[in-house]
Amino acid sequence: MNGAESMLQTLINNGVEVCFANPGTSEMHMVAAMGKSDEVRSVLCLFEGVCSGAADGYGRMAGKPASTLLHLGPGLSNASANLHNAKKAGSPVINLVGDHATYHKQYNAPLTSDILSLAKPVSDWLQVAASAAELPSSAADAVYAANTKPGQVATLIVPADAAWDSSTNPVEVQPRPAIPQVTNQAVTEAVQLLTNSEPSILFLGNMALTERALELADQIVQATGAKLLSDTFIPRLARGEGRCSIERLGYFAEQAEEQVAGIKQWVMVGTKAPVAFFAYPGKASELYPENSTLHTLAQVNEDAENALQKLVDELDANTFAPRMNVKNIPEPGAGELDPVSLANSFAHYLPRDAIVVDEGATAGGLCAPFSESAERHDWLGLTGGSIGYGLPAAIGAAIACPDRKVVCIHGDGGAMYTIQSLWTMAREQLDICVIILANRKYQILQIELSRVGAESVNEKTLEMMDLGNPDIDFVQIALGMGVQATRAETAEQFNQLYGDAMEGTGPYLIEAAMP
Amino acid sequence: MNGAESMLQTLINNGVEVCFANPGTSEMHMVAAMGKSDEVRSVLCLFEGVCSGAADGYGRMAGKPASTLLHLGPGLSNASANLHNAKKAGSPVINLVGDHATYHKQYNAPLTSDILSLAKPVSDWLQVAASAAELPSSAADAVYAANTKPGQVATLIVPADAAWDSSTNPVEVQPRPAIPQVTNQAVTEAVQLLTNSEPSILFLGNMALTERALELADQIVQATGAKLLSDTFIPRLARGEGRCSIERLGYFAEQAEEQVAGIKQWVMVGTKAPVAFFAYPGKASELYPENSTLHTLAQVNEDAENALQKLVDELDANTFAPRMNVKNIPEPGAGELDPVSLANSFAHYLPRDAIVVDEGATAGGLCAPFSESAERHDWLGLTGGSIGYGLPAAIGAAIACPDRKVVCIHGDGGAMYTIQSLWTMAREQLDICVIILANRKYQILQIELSRVGAESVNEKTLEMMDLGNPDIDFVQIALGMGVQATRAETAEQFNQLYGDAMEGTGPYLIEAAMP
Repeated sequence: MNGAESMLQTLINNGVEVCFANPGTSEMHMVAAMGKSDEVRSVLCLFEGVCSGAADGYGRMAGKPASTLLHLGPGLSNASANLHNAKKAGSPVINLVGDHATYHKQYNAPLTSDILSLAKPVSDWLQVAASAAELPSSAADAVYAANTKPGQVATLIVPADAAWDSSTNPVEVQPRPAIPQVTNQAVTEAVQLLTNSEPSILFLGNMALTERALELADQIVQATGAKLLSDTFIPRLARGEGRCSIERLGYFAEQAEEQVAGIKQWVMVGTKAPVAFFAYPGKASELYPENSTLHTLAQVNEDAENALQKLVDELDANTFAPRMNVKNIPEPGAGELDPVSLANSFAHYLPRDAIVVDEGATAGGLCAPFSESAERHDWLGLTGGSIGYGLPAAIGAAIACPDRKVVCIHGDGGAMYTIQSLWTMAREQLDICVIILANRKYQILQIELSRVGAESVNEKTLEMMDLGNPDIDFVQIALGMGVQATRAETAEQFNQLYGDAMEGTGPYLIEAAMP
Repeated sequence: MNGAESMLQTLINNGVEVCFANPGTSEMHMVAAMGKSDEVRSVLCLFEGVCSGAADGYGRMAGKPASTLLHLGPGLSNASANLHNAKKAGSPVINLVGDHATYHKQYNAPLTSDILSLAKPVSDWLQVAASAAELPSSAADAVYAANTKPGQVATLIVPADAAWDSSTNPVEVQPRPAIPQVTNQAVTEAVQLLTNSEPSILFLGNMALTERALELADQIVQATGAKLLSDTFIPRLARGEGRCSIERLGYFAEQAEEQVAGIKQWVMVGTKAPVAFFAYPGKASELYPENSTLHTLAQVNEDAENALQKLVDELDANTFAPRMNVKNIPEPGAGELDPVSLANSFAHYLPRDAIVVDEGATAGGLCAPFSESAERHDWLGLTGGSIGYGLPAAIGAAIACPDRKVVCIHGDGGAMYTIQSLWTMAREQLDICVIILANRKYQILQIELSRVGAESVNEKTLEMMDLGNPDIDFVQIALGMGVQATRAETAEQFNQLYGDAMEGTGPYLIEAAMP
């Protein structure tokens, strides 16, 4: 058994079932090992950013890591924007990065580069497999690291000779890392703050956004009168009928300031105190009022559900029944297609247990609020701000949950970053409906331009944020990659196409004409 | 004048005319500064790998840097694969990477990352602008670094507040760095080796591949009987009628071994001694026979033309007239479209002064040899092994040389990495003909699989290198981005389409059906 084979069996023994691959010559022994195994599904992607985004989406939905297979430094670089998102999401991901054989590195062949330096910023755990003999245990360590809560990006660099040399036996199944629990002191302090009559916010993120955690949080705010808020960008949120609602902190600082006006105390669960996404001249970075009291009940890696349970117990909040959403589905939109009609239609036809992957940007901003009480669903958001995560993440979600419909709402600008994703959707016949919100501009930048105080906005400036000239025809692009697609010019057309897509299965793309 | 404006004027003062941009919020002041200026052409790209590849192609043809405009760590990551190629090519490139305002970094907002660590492996020069006041001088230093021979990748990280705060005056035009000259000792040793009757190779790369350098090299080999060879992967090579030919070292070690069999001495000009692209089990990494004598006449950064001139003078090789190619244009291919017929047609219709951007991989391998004595042209190759450079580099070459036809030969697999390039070609109406060699597989990997000794190649393994299922329709994809396109199934169809494209102007894509 060579290193690649023993490594692969180790991954399989420890629950890894899927590899999102874009291999090259230095990964050929890993490819051959996968070819021989029936226990791992290898999904070919035409660009490494698709691999990493898919692994992110998979990790969020499966609760365990898939692996990527990447070709040296450049392959890792191409994957890194979506690894950045995965790392910020706390997604479990294992990167297998092939490298030159150890003895070949010294020659500085064209593909040689400093992979460690490239990998460090996008990895929570990082190791070079020293040899074929050590490759299985390195792989086991990578799985352990990836499974460390909330989920981590583990990058294992595999020199070609570590893959092809003779190796030791695979590592058998290992225990998963335990999830750290919050201290009683942290709970006691939270109780004190939430019961001292000062205006407070219970602020949730990451692992505190499960169905159960939201029920507990709702009991707490009923008992204490605290305001409930979540992070703006969330890895995964349980929503819809039968779930408890949570308001999200606004993206723009002005919105956020309004939401938290008058608040004196913050109790954080699974997240940190909120800060502005970008800095703006003369504006504060902190989104919490000055002199706020900040208390972290549960760090990002701690057991948020259990922390909330302890808080419920201490507050005797069990007497409050969680206020779950009653199904309240909006009528589908009519007339002109715009953010309002689109969001109504989106929510109307959304099927039970759908997974929504949201990179809808400005034009899709109403889809979340309008589907608050639609059929129950999970919502995956853009966590690291690196655009082009949506299409790949939809792939990963669909592979993790083959029995659920995936709806991917995507801005047109962002979709072009990883447009190759469509081919993998077609090849794997994934049950994904992609909605491209085609407003033909980087609308968020046009908004931000004035907000940052950049003056004298003229035609030349706006051209740099304009996606017209020529218009992008996503229908043709999708058809070119084997995905059926149609453009909707009106809400009625959209309803027909989207409604049908929700009834059917398989990949489908709708280009929604947006103002 | 704010930092962004003074920085931009500094770049303009020092010869920067083009910016390949994919900006975000943190770059808005730089965008606004460009919007106000008539002296810089800003070219919007839909993905950062297009920006960096375009800057590479521009740098190779213009002999001076363009800038990129990138959005924090993820934007840089997306650009990095093609920056890797640019760095290996010795292309002058200036990256402007926006970052959070200095005071905002501490908050670890979603887009925060360790940009320095990401940038180091793909940069020859790297600096964070400390403040708006220092931004102009940092920009001047970046231009100086980029212009350092053979050309360098200079990355300047620009915090948002350095861009928006008040700044000092722009830096006026600065002298360019001098090009280092070779020592007389290096010339003397080269003369000794080339005249001692041992079998020798004059091995050229990078700056030693200009029209003039090749003439000098031809005189030297006529005078000494040395064999003339070039690097396998070359940033830019002067070819065709009226130029002196040079044989390229083969990609596969077996080919290379045959080419250099019996050679005892190597004289390197503008390059290093050759090594294998990848390691293979049980094969040597060096492509020069054991116990070879290696002598570097000119390092990569030294004045190769002048070094060759000195060598000609010392050898009295001026008496030999350079043997320039006499025009000898093959007949166009006929019948089935395959690597032979395609290469014949390619060479037949290639117009005078075309720029050929080559990422033709296996199916395009005959295009170079068959066009040896075609109309004179320049040839740009894949220098760092990171695929997806071809389409972007064609953009840069077309912008650097608006009066020349650019022909981009591209494998189908590689083209999908940066397929968004087509949109920028359409938007800027660039005179580029893209030939997609659609064999619907990663053919190089199928070849490499057996060469690395990976055994038991089965259907599942081959699927990971197969681009069929579904077939990619590049014609639809191109039309979807505004580029006219047609598929050619036979050589005759190809001749018609390609011949017409060479007569016309503007972007055009031909999908060539290849076996």
